[in-house]
This record gives sequence, structure tokens and C-alpha cells, in this order.
Amino acid sequence: MNIGIVGLGLIGGSLAKAIQKYTDHRVLGFDIRPEVCSDSLADGVIDDVLKHRDLASCGLVIVALFPKETVEYIQSHAADFGADTVVMDVCGVKQAVCDPLQGLGITFIGAHPMAGREKFGYYYSDADLFAQASMILTPYPNTPESATRRISELAAVLGFARTVVTTPELHDKVIAYTSQLPHILSNAYVKSPNLHNEAGFSAGSFQDLSRVARLNEEMWVDLFSKNRENLEGELEILITHLTEYRDALKTGDDSRLKQLLREGRLLKEGHTAETGNNR
Amino acid sequence: MNIGIVGLGLIGGSLAKAIQKYTDHRVLGFDIRPEVCSDSLADGVIDDVLKHRDLASCGLVIVALFPKETVEYIQSHAADFGADTVVMDVCGVKQAVCDPLQGLGITFIGAHPMAGREKFGYYYSDADLFAQASMILTPYPNTPESATRRISELAAVLGFARTVVTTPELHDKVIAYTSQLPHILSNAYVKSPNLHNEAGFSAGSFQDLSRVARLNEEMWVDLFSKNRENLEGELEILITHLTEYRDALKTGDDSRLKQLLREGRLLKEGHTAETGNNR
Repeated sequence: MNIGIVGLGLIGGSLAKAIQKYTDHRVLGFDIRPEVCSDSLADGVIDDVLKHRDLASCGLVIVALFPKETVEYIQSHAADFGADTVVMDVCGVKQAVCDPLQGLGITFIGAHPMAGREKFGYYYSDADLFAQASMILTPYPNTPESATRRISELAAVLGFARTVVTTPELHDKVIAYTSQLPHILSNAYVKSPNLHNEAGFSAGSFQDLSRVARLNEEMWVDLFSKNRENLEGELEILITHLTEYRDALKTGDDSRLKQLLREGRLLKEGHTAETGNNR
Repeated sequence: MNIGIVGLGLIGGSLAKAIQKYTDHRVLGFDIRPEVCSDSLADGVIDDVLKHRDLASCGLVIVALFPKETVEYIQSHAADFGADTVVMDVCGVKQAVCDPLQGLGITFIGAHPMAGREKFGYYYSDADLFAQASMILTPYPNTPESATRRISELAAVLGFARTVVTTPELHDKVIAYTSQLPHILSNAYVKSPNLHNEAGFSAGSFQDLSRVARLNEEMWVDLFSKNRENLEGELEILITHLTEYRDALKTGDDSRLKQLLREGRLLKEGHTAETGNNR
């Protein structure tokens, strides 16, 4: 089929490369930066530049823009898609994208490929970015099952380990914890004055915690502000817990501190046993 | 030379295995658990069980116990070491160990091999645990340079990437940030009620942040309580920063939130540029 990709940044570019590498589909791509259009065409990452009139012939159109631009693009092109076209986005928040796109008379499915890098843009895109990742889909209740299957089957071929189908509400609630909170934490962690003393004094846990501090603040503020209550709630929970450890340290209450650490260890062990996720 | 190792847990056992794998030194080891003594002997990890009378013939004695037990062991065996014996510990705090061991008339050097695992004990020890790690040494001002060199030369052979020589004070200050704080953070992070929803909704940042939540609370409470003020200070700094993000989210001040994220990104980029540490 023809697959249209609007926005050839890290995610759109990586999807284009993966589709070229692992399928026979034809990729029509567009990016607002002319050099990305011409480079991706020269690289063979897209087969042709996507024009408005091509949208009707696409079996799948992937809109890989920021949330606001995603909604605007799909609203303004609703009449251009074909009767068989499935439209998906790739945004890290789902309610803010899926809610305004209901009732347009198109087949739209919210999607969140759970992959990323600390660097962004077409020039960091990678055909194997999605290896072992989750693809989360949030179809509307009336979305045809065949449309959801079209995306999940493609995802499997592109290297995703699994497709998870859920609601926009649950997606946003869980993602605040699993992805958004860690980015804020990492960004806050590097603000200690001891950062400049770190070299030679660190092991895996420093590396792990500081990794995603380098983030694209334009993109993340947009995602955070569109998931404000869930994220604020997670931050509140974390600050409350950290304050408990801080207070136990401050008052010299080592048995309390040990109890707090034991509670965390048991939760982690229980989670590992339940999910088999042993990292 | 003969190398004595007291305590064949994760660190002592891994050092014994590394010495057997990478050197011709003779390893005499002891562990309070009889089955570890017999198994390590049967495994060829130690050449013989260490007896008190062997201490005098050792060029190096590695005391790989918890801080309190390390200090007690070295104080009570001070008269047993030879004139040429260098004694080192492996504890994650240095002032609490090095201060009480001054003036004993022995050659003692505080050491902290910056390596570990989420699992502990002899049966998880690994000859290559120290690959690419830092060995931190905190000799006293009057410690002979030759003694420090004896350890750093051995460390290089065992796979350590570098030896860093510093003071116990600076070690404890920096380690509160690079190692102790991340362990508390990870342990607090898994306490969100959304942990049980995580499967399928996470990528690298969840994995990274939750990894060290499974910790040995007996050991870590001991380390934390012996570095109370530094760690409390780091927790305070982090909570203050996290509260800034929380407040910006709560008041809907997205330009403030973007500024906070930009500050973190710039610190991380500056640190990467300065150290070449690009993870």
C-alpha cells in the first residue's frame, strides 16, 4: 500500500526508514523543512514527496507532528483522505489529540510508539528505533477492528515487541508515570552543584538517571501541559515519598529509613515477579 | 603476592574471581558463612582459607565487609598485619571508615570500587564486575605513594577503567549525589499506584529509573546513615527543584516550565561537553 508520512523528524523519519527496510510498501513523505524532503528522497527513505492529492490513495497516513499541529493537519485535511485511508498520529499524549478528532468522518486511531532518543530530528532517525518497543493504540469505541489490525500488523513487522490497545484516558494516566515523570526527574537531578564533580565518581545509577535530562523542551512542555493533572499528581506522590526519606534522614530515624527502603524493594520485587520485567 | 580477602560477598567474591582470572597472585579468603568458604575453595576462587596467621604474609589485605564490621576487623587485627601489608576496604562511605582507622600503625587506604549489582552475595559475584568502573582511593596525607600505587596497578589489571585519588570528605560529598541519591529516588519512584499499570506502557526511562529500587536495605541504611548530612542536602536540593516543576504545572505557567526544562538540558549538555560522558 501507499503510506503517507507527514513530518520526517525522529519518529516520522524512523518509521519511514523501518518501512523501507522491512516492507514493500511505498512511502510518500513530507517535511516542512525543504532539506529534509530532498535528503530523505535522495537517501531513498521516501519514494516520493507527499502531495495533498496523494492522501486519497494512502492505506495509512501517519501524522508525525507535535500535538497541536497534528490536530490542525488532520482537521484541515479530513476531506482529502480516501474511504479506505487509516490515519494515525504518534503523539505522547492521547486525550488532547483523540478528543478533537472525533466525528470528522475519517478513520483515525491514536497511536504512541514508545520509543525515542535524547537527540531528535530526521538526521538521528533510525530504522531500528522501534526494536522491542511497545506500540500503544487508542481507537475510538466505533473504530473498525480491521483498521486497528492494519496498524498492529505493520508494527509487528517494523520490530515492535507488542501492540497495546487501551483508552486515551488510561494511556495518559500511565504515561505520566512511566515516561513523563522520569524526564522531569532526570532534568531536575542534573541541577545539583555536585554535577561538576561527577566524573570518576559514578557508576550505572548516575548514568541511568541523568540520561534523558537532555530533552527537547518545546516538545515536552507541550506534552506535559496536555497531561497536566496526571503529571502533577505523579510529581506530588513522588515529592511526598522523597520527603519521607528526607525526614527519616534528618531525624536520624534509621529504622524508619530501613522500613521505607524495604517497602520500595518489595514493590519492585513484586513487580518483577508479576511482569517478568527484571531490569 | 598473597592477597587476603575478608568477606566473600558480591564485592569480595568478585575481586577474588577477578584476581584469579587476571593475575598470578595467590588469594586467601574468608567468609563468615562456612558454605561460602567451602564453595569458593571448591570453585578455585580462593586458593586457601585465610587464617589470622596468614595476614602477616599478605602484600594486600582487602576487607570487604560492611562499614562497622570493617572498622572492627581492622582495629582488632592491627597487630597481625605485616610491615609490608597494605590494607584496604571497599565501603561506599569513606569518612566513617577512614577516620577511626588513622594512627593504628598500619598502612591503610580507603577504597571504593564503583561497581555493584541489584543482587548481592557470593553467588552473584563476577570476575568482570569491575570492567570500565572507577576505583576511588582515599589515602591519608602520610600514606606512602608506593602503597597507593600497589592498589591502582592491581585495579588496572582487574579491568577498572581508572583510579581516582581523593579525600574521604570529597568522596562522601560526591557519592551522596552520584550513587546514594539515585538509589533513594529509584526506591521512591516505584511507590506510585501506577506501577501495576506499567507493563506495555514503558520504554527506557522507566527501566532506567526503576532498576536499582531493589536494594539491600541493611547495607544501604548503614551507608546512608554514615553520610547523613551530604545525602540529606542532596535530597533537599532535588525536592526543591521538583517542587519548582510541580508549581509551574499547577499554576499552568508553561513558559516557566519550559525555562526549568531548558536549564536542565543546558546543564546536561555542558556536562557532556566537559566530560565526554555522553550517555
